[in-house]
Amino acid sequence: MKTARVEAFSDAVFAVAITLLVLDLHVPKTSGSLIAALADEWPAFAAFGISFLVIGIVWVNHHTLFHVLSYTDRVLLFINLGFLATIVIIPFVTALFSDYVLTAGSQASVAAALYNASMLLMGVGFMACVVWVARHHELLREELPPLTRGQLLRYSAGALVYSVCIPLSFVSPVAVLIIDALVAVYYIFDQASVSVETA
Amino acid sequence: MKTARVEAFSDAVFAVAITLLVLDLHVPKTSGSLIAALADEWPAFAAFGISFLVIGIVWVNHHTLFHVLSYTDRVLLFINLGFLATIVIIPFVTALFSDYVLTAGSQASVAAALYNASMLLMGVGFMACVVWVARHHELLREELPPLTRGQLLRYSAGALVYSVCIPLSFVSPVAVLIIDALVAVYYIFDQASVSVETA
Amino acid sequence: MKTARVEAFSDAVFAVAITLLVLDLHVPKTSGSLIAALADEWPAFAAFGISFLVIGIVWVNHHTLFHVLSYTDRVLLFINLGFLATIVIIPFVTALFSDYVLTAGSQASVAAALYNASMLLMGVGFMACVVWVARHHELLREELPPLTRGQLLRYSAGALVYSVCIPLSFVSPVAVLIIDALVAVYYIFDQASVSVETA
Amino acid sequence: MKTARVEAFSDAVFAVAITLLVLDLHVPKTSGSLIAALADEWPAFAAFGISFLVIGIVWVNHHTLFHVLSYTDRVLLFINLGFLATIVIIPFVTALFSDYVLTAGSQASVAAALYNASMLLMGVGFMACVVWVARHHELLREELPPLTRGQLLRYSAGALVYSVCIPLSFVSPVAVLIIDALVAVYYIFDQASVSVETA
Repeated sequence: MKTARVEAFSDAVFAVAITLLVLDLHVPKTSGSLIAALADEWPAFAAFGISFLVIGIVWVNHHTLFHVLSYTDRVLLFINLGFLATIVIIPFVTALFSDYVLTAGSQASVAAALYNASMLLMGVGFMACVVWVARHHELLREELPPLTRGQLLRYSAGALVYSVCIPLSFVSPVAVLIIDALVAVYYIFDQASVSVETA
Repeated sequence: MKTARVEAFSDAVFAVAITLLVLDLHVPKTSGSLIAALADEWPAFAAFGISFLVIGIVWVNHHTLFHVLSYTDRVLLFINLGFLATIVIIPFVTALFSDYVLTAGSQASVAAALYNASMLLMGVGFMACVVWVARHHELLREELPPLTRGQLLRYSAGALVYSVCIPLSFVSPVAVLIIDALVAVYYIFDQASVSVETA
Repeated sequence: MKTARVEAFSDAVFAVAITLLVLDLHVPKTSGSLIAALADEWPAFAAFGISFLVIGIVWVNHHTLFHVLSYTDRVLLFINLGFLATIVIIPFVTALFSDYVLTAGSQASVAAALYNASMLLMGVGFMACVVWVARHHELLREELPPLTRGQLLRYSAGALVYSVCIPLSFVSPVAVLIIDALVAVYYIFDQASVSVETA
Repeated sequence: MKTARVEAFSDAVFAVAITLLVLDLHVPKTSGSLIAALADEWPAFAAFGISFLVIGIVWVNHHTLFHVLSYTDRVLLFINLGFLATIVIIPFVTALFSDYVLTAGSQASVAAALYNASMLLMGVGFMACVVWVARHHELLREELPPLTRGQLLRYSAGALVYSVCIPLSFVSPVAVLIIDALVAVYYIFDQASVSVETA
């Protein structure tokens, strides 16, 4: 099977999920200062920004992975489907994180931990796609290596950070929010520099 | 007519419907344990997972069916449209099922029966596409058989299970939820193994 | 400019709009009979069905129109954009119609009239695309006629029905709902028969 | 990397964002005149119309820009991603603007200023794409110039108007709404005339 339709389907799921993030932003109902009311919602904007970057980065990675394929098989379609489930759920865990990150007690910790667990699961899903592709050379276009060792290390580093963030959520959910933001920004610059090196 | 645009349109409908499922997941408003509040929503997560798998599996089948076509005609466009109606409605019947599955009395039964009737209708819609294609050889690419007898049997088995689940809903809606989950998981493994056999 | 991207964009708008119709279906909150509560919502299901068919039919027509084009120009892009605005607004006028069709007095009439005015505007937008294409032969693939006189007559008939339905809304909104349903069903069979004739 | 998938992803984001605008239109709940209740919501319809035109125009520009490219690199993917963030947020700033434009005091001004700041940011994002493409001739198809000086001037004019509208929001938010509408309509006719000239 050609990869065109699985790419089209995946692209659409990525695009809908990234755009549905806007539904997590609510116009505040206030009779006072609108600026203050919007500022009170900063976790929603921060979580929107982080999740937008995450979906965007992962889309680029997905794009890169499928770019090296000539064919897909049904197993890869289903592994990809499981991976897409972790994308589709992002608007939910994003709303969960931003709604509870400023609450006192364990609620913020649980929300932060679930957000990072969801990110970790997404990384695992993507790695499962990578591993399947790496073991099925018949799917590959000849001229391209699937992924370099450096890229694999960087992906693993991301999974490691999310793994560490899960227990860290029970210490400081806001610190976890900041780390998640830094991870996303790091990957943007890391991947852009890959491009410049190899262009 | 070429199949490119009907595939693109169908892919987008599948992708939007599968992603809109996330709108059925609600961030609980609680001042108590967030874990407990989320756990109370387990039917929503279960129904999300089942419907996600169903749409995903049906997308793979749709992909496989249209893969054997070179052309489409207008009748097939409209049969496909009727089939897509059963996909678009899935976020609604999913919410209906998960909102009522734990209620006492006939409500849970009605919700479970309607969910399974919707799944059955989807199967019928897909079979109608298959039958039309099978009777119009001029639409087919020469080199591929439309569907094997084994696949047809497996599709019929799915329709049979959903048919049985409708009356069963009036005995135990939760049992029906579990059967629906098992059917989805069965099809994932069944179809992945088809792939491995023929790869 | 090639038509690939305007077709992809239009397909996605059609697909999102047709799938967003499901958001007009609300799971009823009832402690009584769920069947009765759903039956009370029959206008929502009827309006969902009609609008689903309308968007589907119009997508097929759009598909057919752009199928005869080799190129698009910027004017056509903007006429198409205006036409797409009438598609995007359908989930809103559908909800308006179904929420008010059973109310007493002028509300139901206004809602029905606005729904049909919106359908009429959609027809006008589509005809504007057709007229532009018909006057710009340089956009056409040589081998195909843009539209037959019979098809133009049928399109005009649809516009005529919607025009008549606007004043009729002030006599009987429910009658208008039924006429809208019949128009959609008629077009389905009409267009499918075109296909069979020419296949 | 070929541009097909970034175009498909961008198209889908544009299409979902433009269609989600309909969620900003609410069916009024009234027991009085439905016409009057809808008329009271005129800012929502005006803002819907403006944002629809803006997304449509920007999609045409995006289409035109990527049309001249043969390849994309990873930096452009991420600049494009940042630009798409300004598209995704439009349904939110549109709702903000329309909900507050008629309120007294500073709320309307803040909402109008944020809407126009968002539009300005979108223009900056698009210009960043243009600048990157202009500096990387290896991405271009040989036969086409990237953008004419006239087009660049017109883009700059749009950014200038939005810049002026930000402080003007604190004088008259309704005047800003009207200017935003005029800008959108101006661009429609300006770009359509480009088409006619060069067709």
